[in-house]
Amino acid sequence: MRKKQIVVIGNHNATEVQASTAYSIGVYVAKKKFALICGGRGGVMESAARGAVENGGLVIGILPDDTFAAANQFCSIVLPTGIGYARNSMNVLAADLVISIGGEKGTLTELAYAWHYGKPIVACSFTGGWSEKLAGTRIDNSREDIIKNAHSLKEVFQELDILSQ
Amino acid sequence: MRKKQIVVIGNHNATEVQASTAYSIGVYVAKKKFALICGGRGGVMESAARGAVENGGLVIGILPDDTFAAANQFCSIVLPTGIGYARNSMNVLAADLVISIGGEKGTLTELAYAWHYGKPIVACSFTGGWSEKLAGTRIDNSREDIIKNAHSLKEVFQELDILSQ
Amino acid sequence: MRKKQIVVIGNHNATEVQASTAYSIGVYVAKKKFALICGGRGGVMESAARGAVENGGLVIGILPDDTFAAANQFCSIVLPTGIGYARNSMNVLAADLVISIGGEKGTLTELAYAWHYGKPIVACSFTGGWSEKLAGTRIDNSREDIIKNAHSLKEVFQELDILSQ
Amino acid sequence: MRKKQIVVIGNHNATEVQASTAYSIGVYVAKKKFALICGGRGGVMESAARGAVENGGLVIGILPDDTFAAANQFCSIVLPTGIGYARNSMNVLAADLVISIGGEKGTLTELAYAWHYGKPIVACSFTGGWSEKLAGTRIDNSREDIIKNAHSLKEVFQELDILSQ
Repeated sequence: MRKKQIVVIGNHNATEVQASTAYSIGVYVAKKKFALICGGRGGVMESAARGAVENGGLVIGILPDDTFAAANQFCSIVLPTGIGYARNSMNVLAADLVISIGGEKGTLTELAYAWHYGKPIVACSFTGGWSEKLAGTRIDNSREDIIKNAHSLKEVFQELDILSQ
Repeated sequence: MRKKQIVVIGNHNATEVQASTAYSIGVYVAKKKFALICGGRGGVMESAARGAVENGGLVIGILPDDTFAAANQFCSIVLPTGIGYARNSMNVLAADLVISIGGEKGTLTELAYAWHYGKPIVACSFTGGWSEKLAGTRIDNSREDIIKNAHSLKEVFQELDILSQ
Repeated sequence: MRKKQIVVIGNHNATEVQASTAYSIGVYVAKKKFALICGGRGGVMESAARGAVENGGLVIGILPDDTFAAANQFCSIVLPTGIGYARNSMNVLAADLVISIGGEKGTLTELAYAWHYGKPIVACSFTGGWSEKLAGTRIDNSREDIIKNAHSLKEVFQELDILSQ
Repeated sequence: MRKKQIVVIGNHNATEVQASTAYSIGVYVAKKKFALICGGRGGVMESAARGAVENGGLVIGILPDDTFAAANQFCSIVLPTGIGYARNSMNVLAADLVISIGGEKGTLTELAYAWHYGKPIVACSFTGGWSEKLAGTRIDNSREDIIKNAHSLKEVFQELDILSQ
C-alpha cells in the first residue's frame, strides 16, 4: 500500500548542474509513481520537488521550521517539524533510497545519518560537494556496502528502475 | 499546491464508536481531496487511515519509531521519525485542522500542543476520553476561541466543508 | 553516581504564589543535594532555579531554543535543544520526580508525557492551573497510581524526603 | 553563572589511544571547573566522563534512549532524550567548545552539526577516524575558520586554557 519513498538531499542554494540534476530526478521519481521526500526548502529540494509535481508526482517537504510558510511552492504535503535541523535525521529515516546532490554541512549530516540507519545511498558525484567527496566510499566500517557513485543521471535512473522491480 | 492537511488524533486502542467515527471521518476527508495525517499506528489512527485510503485518499503516517514496520497497512506514506513521542508535537504542527476522537495521555499531549500552536481543533465529544473532557473548553487563556465541540459526525463534516471553501 | 533529578514544571509567567512555591522547592531540592531540572526560562522555572542556585544547588535548564541566550540567569548548565516544544517530552524523561506548579498548555503536555513515561508526579494543587485540575486524578487508566495532590509545600517536601532514603 | 560547557564527541567503541585521550581531556576539563557534556554511553564518552568525575568534575550524559539505564556509570546527570540519534544535534548545541576524538558515522553527524551551528571545534587528528580526516579543514564555505587540528593533548589543553580566560 505504501508508496516507495525517495529522499533527495542537497544544497539549499543549488548550482545550475545541481538544480537541473535535481529536476530530472524529480521527473523520473514521479514517472515511476514513487513519492519524493525532501527538506521542503529551496535549491536542490525545490528543483526536485518541481520536477516531480510538474509530472503528477507526490512531494512531501519536511521542514525544520514550525510553520508552513518556509516551504517551497512545489510540496503537495508540508510537515513543519518544529525541531530545527534535528529533522535531518528524520528526512533520511523516511527513505527507501537516498539520492544525494552536491551538498554542504546539512547534506553531510544526512549522508552520515543515512549510513547510520542502513539506508541505500546514491551520490551524484558529478554535482560536487559532499556527494562528490563521499561517492564510492564507506563512511565507516559498520557496513559492507558503499555509497554508490552515480557518474550520470542515467546511473541514478538505473537505481530507481531497480527499486520498481 | 499544498493539499489541506487534516490531522486525526486518538486512541491506539479504539472502542467501536471511536473506530467507526474515525473511519467515517477518513472517508469524508478523502472525498474532500484533503490529505489525512495521523500517528500511523492502530486504533483510531488505523480506522481513519482505512476510511481515507479505501476512498482514494492520501494518508501520511507519522510514527514515533525509526522503522516502517510499525505502521498500519493503510498509510500511503510512512514517516518513521525516530524521535519517540516527541513526534506528538510534529503531528499537530502538520495540521490545517485537528480532529480529536476519544483520547488518552498521548492524545492529551497532542490537544495541548495543538492549542499551543494555534491550530483549530474539533473534539468529538461523543467519543469519550479527553475529547469529551475538553470539547467546548479552553486549555488556557492564551486563545480567545475554544476547542470546538462536535456532538455528531455531521458537525465534524461541517467543519471540513468550511475548510474546502 | 548519578544525582537524583527533580524536574519542576510550570508557567513561564508565574503568579506570586507560584513563584514563591517554586523558589521554596528549589531551595529544598538544593538542600537535599538533588539536581534541579527545568525548562530554563522565566516564571516558575526561573524561581525554582534561583532557589536552588542560591543554596548551592545544581540547575539544568533545557531550552526549546537553539542558543544559550534565552536561558534564565540561574542555570548552572544550559541545554539549548533546538527542537522547540518537542523538548517538553525530554524535560520529564529526565525526572526521578516531576513537581508541577500552576500550569498552562505547555505544562499540560509535560504532565501528560510524565504520565505516559511512568514518572511519579506531584501536583501543587494550591497553585492553580493544570496542577490544580489534575492533582489527585489519573490521566487515563494506563497507570494504577494517581498524580499526587500536594496541598502544601510541606507535602512536597515529604515527597522529596522519601526520595532521599 | 553558567559553567563553560565542553562537549566531547567520539566512538562508542574506543581504541586505546582514543580512550586514554578522552580520559585525559576529561581530567583537564574537570580541573578547569568546566562541565563535561557527552553522549552518555561507552567508549570515548565513558572515558571522558570517568576522567572528569574522578577529578571532581560534573558530567552530563545526553542519551538517545528514553531511560536512564543506557548511561555509563560516570554521568552526574543523565538526560534520556528519547529522540534517538536526532539527539546528536542537541549534543553540540550545548557546546562552548566541541572536542572530537576518532569518530565514525555518529561523530560525523556531530562534526557537521557543530560546523552548522557555528561552534568552535577541535579535532584530535592523532586519534584517527573522522577527527583525523576533517582536522584542519572546512566542512563547507559557510565559515571562515577551520576545524582546528590538535596534534597532541597539549594542543587540546591550550584550547581549554584559552576558554578559561
